[in-house]
Amino acid sequence: MPLQFTFDHLFGGKNLSGNALVSIVSAGMSKFGRREGLYGRELFVEAASEAFERCPNLDPQKDIKAAFIGMMGESFEHQGHTGPTILDWIGLLPTQAFRTEGACGSSATAIRCGIFAVLSNLADVVLVGGVEKMTHRATADVTEYLAMACDFPFEQWNGLTFPGLFAMVATAHMHKYGTTEEQLASVAVKNHHHGCMNPKAHMQKEITLEKALSSRVVAWPLKLYDCSLITDGASCLILTKPELARKFTDTPVHIIGSGQASDTIGLYERRELTSLKVGKLAAKEAYRMAGLDSLDIDVAEVHDCFTIAEIVAYEDLGFCKQGEGGRFVEEGQSQIGGKVAVCTSGGLKSKGHPVGATGAAQAYEIFLQLTEQAGKRQVKGAEVGLTHNVGGLGATGVVNVYSRG
Amino acid sequence: MPLQFTFDHLFGGKNLSGNALVSIVSAGMSKFGRREGLYGRELFVEAASEAFERCPNLDPQKDIKAAFIGMMGESFEHQGHTGPTILDWIGLLPTQAFRTEGACGSSATAIRCGIFAVLSNLADVVLVGGVEKMTHRATADVTEYLAMACDFPFEQWNGLTFPGLFAMVATAHMHKYGTTEEQLASVAVKNHHHGCMNPKAHMQKEITLEKALSSRVVAWPLKLYDCSLITDGASCLILTKPELARKFTDTPVHIIGSGQASDTIGLYERRELTSLKVGKLAAKEAYRMAGLDSLDIDVAEVHDCFTIAEIVAYEDLGFCKQGEGGRFVEEGQSQIGGKVAVCTSGGLKSKGHPVGATGAAQAYEIFLQLTEQAGKRQVKGAEVGLTHNVGGLGATGVVNVYSRG
Repeated sequence: MPLQFTFDHLFGGKNLSGNALVSIVSAGMSKFGRREGLYGRELFVEAASEAFERCPNLDPQKDIKAAFIGMMGESFEHQGHTGPTILDWIGLLPTQAFRTEGACGSSATAIRCGIFAVLSNLADVVLVGGVEKMTHRATADVTEYLAMACDFPFEQWNGLTFPGLFAMVATAHMHKYGTTEEQLASVAVKNHHHGCMNPKAHMQKEITLEKALSSRVVAWPLKLYDCSLITDGASCLILTKPELARKFTDTPVHIIGSGQASDTIGLYERRELTSLKVGKLAAKEAYRMAGLDSLDIDVAEVHDCFTIAEIVAYEDLGFCKQGEGGRFVEEGQSQIGGKVAVCTSGGLKSKGHPVGATGAAQAYEIFLQLTEQAGKRQVKGAEVGLTHNVGGLGATGVVNVYSRG
Repeated sequence: MPLQFTFDHLFGGKNLSGNALVSIVSAGMSKFGRREGLYGRELFVEAASEAFERCPNLDPQKDIKAAFIGMMGESFEHQGHTGPTILDWIGLLPTQAFRTEGACGSSATAIRCGIFAVLSNLADVVLVGGVEKMTHRATADVTEYLAMACDFPFEQWNGLTFPGLFAMVATAHMHKYGTTEEQLASVAVKNHHHGCMNPKAHMQKEITLEKALSSRVVAWPLKLYDCSLITDGASCLILTKPELARKFTDTPVHIIGSGQASDTIGLYERRELTSLKVGKLAAKEAYRMAGLDSLDIDVAEVHDCFTIAEIVAYEDLGFCKQGEGGRFVEEGQSQIGGKVAVCTSGGLKSKGHPVGATGAAQAYEIFLQLTEQAGKRQVKGAEVGLTHNVGGLGATGVVNVYSRG
């Protein structure tokens, strides 16, 4: 992948093929799971420590010029003002710090802000990441806090929360394309299988199709095993200008395309329920910048908050045709060794979904894969990766494309 | 003010004198006050409509490439995911949208992200702003939600909220420098006087020193009139590259310097209580970029969340020496016609403090002042302005310096 660095190339719809926007020179992630007795800030210390240790040439206090931290909800820990809180705990004061929020896409929006900051020439090295501490709360409270990412007057007020909203997407997809409950459950089986090979995953256990199908119904057709996990965790990346990357590491990973789009906060305002417009638009922009298309992707982390969301993601990202996502997973095309390895980390489904941390944790997995550090779940020869992070029911969507350095 | 546009000038501590980072080509603000029956998103429509109408050459749907919206708390309206919610309501979908949070400095951090985005060359025109809807909540709830911007385990848990925290700053300042209750009250009297000339201010009424001093104690020495208002409101700016500014308006205002810093989330961790380090550091950076110093500032909006905070701001910004802030206001040096006109809008104290909207509302006032649109409160011949926005008890601080185009 040849690199060109003139900023003029990035503006005005010119051909951006092969440009690295920014480079990831290090990454860190806390163990995901039920992390009792720790604050979110302490989980972030775990993630940042890994990123700092992985990059001995980085002097965090001196080199890092800005930090962008995604976090969804201050209600979980009764704590907002996440930017300086985190920077205090990881020893980076008085560096400028920002919290970004885009619901479950919060840390993907942090990555985007980090890209802006690096390309602005006002901050040559930035830390981006995310955090959420959730498991100390009762499930009903977590569901309520998460529901703040959908519309209050028209959705929350009427008792809708995310399982119900995604169930509507699932039933619409089943009705329109004949997608089956077994196909939904296949996503869970695959991601649990992948998660067993990830020592940082929340739930490292295999499940069978039968077990998934017989689990209790949460919002039909979504059953317990169709839902991602309530998890504690933090994740981060160190971004810099591509021409500075080799100062910090011999194996950088480049972000070569990035797109973000917004859609209506309410599902009731949409013309279509079986696709997320933000996923399609963000992917189109990211592919355009990278000069690549879906066929070039070796490994992808997609937003499998519910199994139906992963099936919709295959279609929105062009991994298969519209309506064929169910068959795609059923045929094994999205498992390691298939056409494209999707959610090798275990995904939100098995690795866990500490919402604010998820977007940067997806990028962490791609960083490991493209630098051959993914252990048992390594996708051999992976050269191009993709992340797809969604906020709410697709009111925010961010897609990034990555290449080996 | 000569303009130079090469991005190389912005990096590496080179001389930035006279460079415009970005230009403000339009601005809007809702009426501040108790806006019953409206959602925050509806207040933002009011602000955005003004900004769009003020700039007929702007085609919002086509021209605006990204939006950054500051909002402090999802608890107020049980609504997060503010970015796409606002963009849905102002007709800008599917444009990428971000919520930024830095407590009461949330929309100043949105402005900073907007600067990064414009300078990145990935978005030539951006909308930045902020919103908060607060008055429908009981005062005790508002106090609790605001307290999420201070430290949970060490401050909130022990019953501390912001009036108590700023009262500690006030008593320390009184002890160290002899600052008096009358001097604190003088800030309130001045800002109420200024606010009377602002038709969008929440509380357009004069008060006397006696009235302020005899109002009920909230947290000694801070009395009711030492505290800013619980207010509903929204504000926004349209930013672009300086070389594109004349396409949109004949009277742009340039941001010629900008600084941001972070400090400990907890006051208990600080060595000094009588100054906010973030204010000093951010001002130093903003002055350096602008090639100016405090003597050049004609008009300033500072973060007067409590009267003591404005006195500390004078000192941190270099308007007077450390410890002389009390005398500075008492002698009338910060009123319109004084050495530097501070909080001509009425400030947080009289215009109101819808926390997420405050930073961009400060910039809105400076935009009006530097384009001679400030009506009765116009500072004659104002050429250079400054905004100073603080989050929490100075865990976040942002200072911008502005010049006439």
